[in-house]
Amino acid sequence: MSDPTMSAASFRVLYEQIRAQAQWGPGDRRGALNHITAARLIAAAAEVRDGRTVTLAAPLASSGPDNPEPGARHMKRLPAEPSEVPGLSFAADQITMNVHGDVDSHIDALCHVSYDGTLYNGVAASVVTSRGAAELSIDDVRDGIVGRGVLLDIPRLRGIPWLEPGEQVTAAELAAAEEAQQVHVGPGDLLFVRVGHRRRRDELGPWDVARSRAGLHPGACEYLAERQVAVLGSDSNSDAAPSIVDGVAFPVHVLAINALGVHLLDYLQFDDLVPACEAAARWSFLCVIAPLRLPGGTGSPVNPIAVL
Amino acid sequence: MSDPTMSAASFRVLYEQIRAQAQWGPGDRRGALNHITAARLIAAAAEVRDGRTVTLAAPLASSGPDNPEPGARHMKRLPAEPSEVPGLSFAADQITMNVHGDVDSHIDALCHVSYDGTLYNGVAASVVTSRGAAELSIDDVRDGIVGRGVLLDIPRLRGIPWLEPGEQVTAAELAAAEEAQQVHVGPGDLLFVRVGHRRRRDELGPWDVARSRAGLHPGACEYLAERQVAVLGSDSNSDAAPSIVDGVAFPVHVLAINALGVHLLDYLQFDDLVPACEAAARWSFLCVIAPLRLPGGTGSPVNPIAVL
Amino acid sequence: MSDPTMSAASFRVLYEQIRAQAQWGPGDRRGALNHITAARLIAAAAEVRDGRTVTLAAPLASSGPDNPEPGARHMKRLPAEPSEVPGLSFAADQITMNVHGDVDSHIDALCHVSYDGTLYNGVAASVVTSRGAAELSIDDVRDGIVGRGVLLDIPRLRGIPWLEPGEQVTAAELAAAEEAQQVHVGPGDLLFVRVGHRRRRDELGPWDVARSRAGLHPGACEYLAERQVAVLGSDSNSDAAPSIVDGVAFPVHVLAINALGVHLLDYLQFDDLVPACEAAARWSFLCVIAPLRLPGGTGSPVNPIAVL
Amino acid sequence: MSDPTMSAASFRVLYEQIRAQAQWGPGDRRGALNHITAARLIAAAAEVRDGRTVTLAAPLASSGPDNPEPGARHMKRLPAEPSEVPGLSFAADQITMNVHGDVDSHIDALCHVSYDGTLYNGVAASVVTSRGAAELSIDDVRDGIVGRGVLLDIPRLRGIPWLEPGEQVTAAELAAAEEAQQVHVGPGDLLFVRVGHRRRRDELGPWDVARSRAGLHPGACEYLAERQVAVLGSDSNSDAAPSIVDGVAFPVHVLAINALGVHLLDYLQFDDLVPACEAAARWSFLCVIAPLRLPGGTGSPVNPIAVL
Repeated sequence: MSDPTMSAASFRVLYEQIRAQAQWGPGDRRGALNHITAARLIAAAAEVRDGRTVTLAAPLASSGPDNPEPGARHMKRLPAEPSEVPGLSFAADQITMNVHGDVDSHIDALCHVSYDGTLYNGVAASVVTSRGAAELSIDDVRDGIVGRGVLLDIPRLRGIPWLEPGEQVTAAELAAAEEAQQVHVGPGDLLFVRVGHRRRRDELGPWDVARSRAGLHPGACEYLAERQVAVLGSDSNSDAAPSIVDGVAFPVHVLAINALGVHLLDYLQFDDLVPACEAAARWSFLCVIAPLRLPGGTGSPVNPIAVL
Repeated sequence: MSDPTMSAASFRVLYEQIRAQAQWGPGDRRGALNHITAARLIAAAAEVRDGRTVTLAAPLASSGPDNPEPGARHMKRLPAEPSEVPGLSFAADQITMNVHGDVDSHIDALCHVSYDGTLYNGVAASVVTSRGAAELSIDDVRDGIVGRGVLLDIPRLRGIPWLEPGEQVTAAELAAAEEAQQVHVGPGDLLFVRVGHRRRRDELGPWDVARSRAGLHPGACEYLAERQVAVLGSDSNSDAAPSIVDGVAFPVHVLAINALGVHLLDYLQFDDLVPACEAAARWSFLCVIAPLRLPGGTGSPVNPIAVL
Repeated sequence: MSDPTMSAASFRVLYEQIRAQAQWGPGDRRGALNHITAARLIAAAAEVRDGRTVTLAAPLASSGPDNPEPGARHMKRLPAEPSEVPGLSFAADQITMNVHGDVDSHIDALCHVSYDGTLYNGVAASVVTSRGAAELSIDDVRDGIVGRGVLLDIPRLRGIPWLEPGEQVTAAELAAAEEAQQVHVGPGDLLFVRVGHRRRRDELGPWDVARSRAGLHPGACEYLAERQVAVLGSDSNSDAAPSIVDGVAFPVHVLAINALGVHLLDYLQFDDLVPACEAAARWSFLCVIAPLRLPGGTGSPVNPIAVL
Repeated sequence: MSDPTMSAASFRVLYEQIRAQAQWGPGDRRGALNHITAARLIAAAAEVRDGRTVTLAAPLASSGPDNPEPGARHMKRLPAEPSEVPGLSFAADQITMNVHGDVDSHIDALCHVSYDGTLYNGVAASVVTSRGAAELSIDDVRDGIVGRGVLLDIPRLRGIPWLEPGEQVTAAELAAAEEAQQVHVGPGDLLFVRVGHRRRRDELGPWDVARSRAGLHPGACEYLAERQVAVLGSDSNSDAAPSIVDGVAFPVHVLAINALGVHLLDYLQFDDLVPACEAAARWSFLCVIAPLRLPGGTGSPVNPIAVL
């Protein structure tokens, strides 16, 4: 972090303000997913009007400056080799992946972030042991996250191909994007904010994103609370680097996941979705996020699907 | 295999008959997914009437007689330990999984099965190398599989808790289940056939399913072709064991994946879906299958989501 | 544990007695390896008189009742496939292994066992975090363990092919084996005790060794202390199951590793060594144990080499 | 490769010349290890005169430009957490490693290199399948490699801290180092050639060694043949980059492993051994290489131990 412009004390005030808006009771483990009511889910299905589906994930990435511990896929059986199975042969493989990291598309469980010794809703950080998270694991959302997705495209608003690393998106700019795109973000929406991170990566190559990364201004989390969004996804990890908060490296992670109970989706890919939205002349869609069933898990690789 | 009742020659005739019904052109790589037209997908969204979502996957399983090489999840960071990140701490983990196997819920890509030296649609088995599948990999369905799901519950039809290992479901029985459940399986549907495998496993414990397993009779694949289903999922792997076909261990895999281009979903979990369907008094729903983006992959772990 | 014949209180007395014999100072991290002096190592080299080497490890095992989470080796490159490397092609692979377990040959680091909240020599158990062991890791023996090895063959003494699971080897029996084999175990020796576990496994197949396993009687650890052995290896894990100690499942692990600072080598393979010793008409040899360099590690797979 | 100074044709002549010196019969699978006779092994044990052991391996490395797919070690159990084992608790972990690569110390099996479609001694490259190497796997040396080790320190000879990437060591220079160090390399010796690679890495940090790396001149393989060395190890991978051979990227790998049957040990660490040799005023020692028992494996991580 260099040149912080928000003091630790101001951040704490913001944290408490935002946390006060996530009042679902002491036993709650779903956080902002509570905003997705049955009625809203039914309404979201009405977004399916073109009969088209689009991935919001990027392919498993190989090693790079933003991917020092890449996932891997290894073959176990090749179908052209002699088979021990009568009458046919199989292709089979095995995967190894870190659940988080800075390039593969994934969802963060509510156990992912500890602040002041507690996870979301005051759950003790010690519920996470070497065996996994006894509470707030990703398997709490085993039934998937389904609702109306909205994409706000910040580079489009600014008329540039991408935000440069380090740049931040404020609440005001999110509102401006809504107006420009003629879409309104409301309760229970799955909000996706495009900063152009992945397009920049595709065109210029990967860089050390741990040091410089476009993201949301911490203040934008007030917008998340106010609009009652259910989840937040980005083609970066939503947190800009360096952080502008003195002494807090990932303020949006703290505010969204820990204070507000908003699941984050990191390092998504919107470059297929943008032209689909343009073709459909709208920026909302049905969206389905289906984490793997990993009891105790701190998140999951995902491939969110937009259905237009 | 013991006591085969279908000769190798009869099976070959069946194979050719079924393959003749998958005529999407020599370059086709989507197979029966072609049945999911835009209109059918839009119609499927109208199934969302209750505003409820249900997982069709089982949690990552530990070792057992049906799971000799279990997947694993290991912690990388514990949030209660001192953090090297300023102002917060993270919980993070890593996963290792075989994509196929006999217990974890997964989807088979069209490259998964070679018969007579070729994969689906005559693609040479040699396209799959140690680097992965150059064609027909699971990333060909990166945009997800979305359509109307239909669950046919065979134990319900028979009035028993589950089919015993080795028992088979015929086409006639599928039709009988349709009638009993007052649902009709049609073009582009995602068909799920419950044999009670997982409930038996939950109640009696795991067994060596490689030797004995309930599944579909090979002849039921004619039903798949005729009804033009898009995918087939089961709480077993759709193939009964022992096989009734002389010299072919997995006849349904060969007929469905290789001949007909039907993606199979293996070892799903319907015990959450059944009561949801009962409560909704219907056996159809919107269904979303979102494979991970694994270029070259032979399949993917998945968590299919039913939306009612 | 069933039918314990040593009370918890008696065990504690034994623990304190044995621990009192490992007095290398508060900062010591080598434990009984301190017994291997330069002079003893030089003397051990004189055991090389036949010019023959023998492995004391078993091949990487596949899944079984004693191996629920088997290690794996996957190919990354096949040399018969087209190569991206000019002028040649490579075969390459990748391994995944649990360091401990009940079948693959491995060494336990001194951080492996906590008793009463502390590791060897009073080191707090909390030095082991999700990042690994900050103290007493296997990398503390990065320079290898080299000394005189002695094999005591208990089934040979008893005139049987193997000890049955649950049977125990007492100190008196170790002494009897010495006499029968005309070898004396002394300070700095690497002691290997064969109970026939692996031969039984080879002949009868694997079983659930967590429940029944031949090993040493806890009292035999007094012999280890008295003779000042440097390490203890066995073709089981040295601890019999069920334990005869009330409330302590692995008493030999506690006494050897935690109290005495004796590195244990588990699930070795002596069936190549026995005929070599017979041919050489002696039961001592130079022995070299070379753990992988795994900083923070709790042990390592190993292939100890006997040189006769 | 840039600016090759050895033509493809000249290389082929050299290959045939060298291969002609590895005549152990068509069924041989040990190659140059045949040079280690019983007498030579016994003689090597006489090198143990100081009673000191030294590791020749480097610690498991983290990600870097020379380590894009780093190995990993993950904790499975922490001893300070509540234990399910009565009376004690365990620390346990799991490792994942690529066997080869450009930083972790490892040995190459004789199946590692295919040239003109064959491995060492004319074995077809196709013996290596997705299941592993049916012949020439690392488990062929399960009994370890034990003999006299000799370290030739080229930077010492040149009076510099390390060879710069791209520089090569000729046969003449090896001979000069022998003379300077007053040691003679002879039949059955385990030859280690220090180019200073790892010291440079420690002092300047890692770089992209795939592009530039110090190593042996291909002609030095004539020296290996003539001196009848049993294995060759280096703190680089013995092959310089870029290659000076037109169209052959790793000429030393081809000549040593494939033509001569010399196992290579790559990316060793001599910075502990050099001061030990200086203190002992000699450059020879007993050396023990103990590959893990990985049937079908293309090599193994190793920790060679020098005993002085």
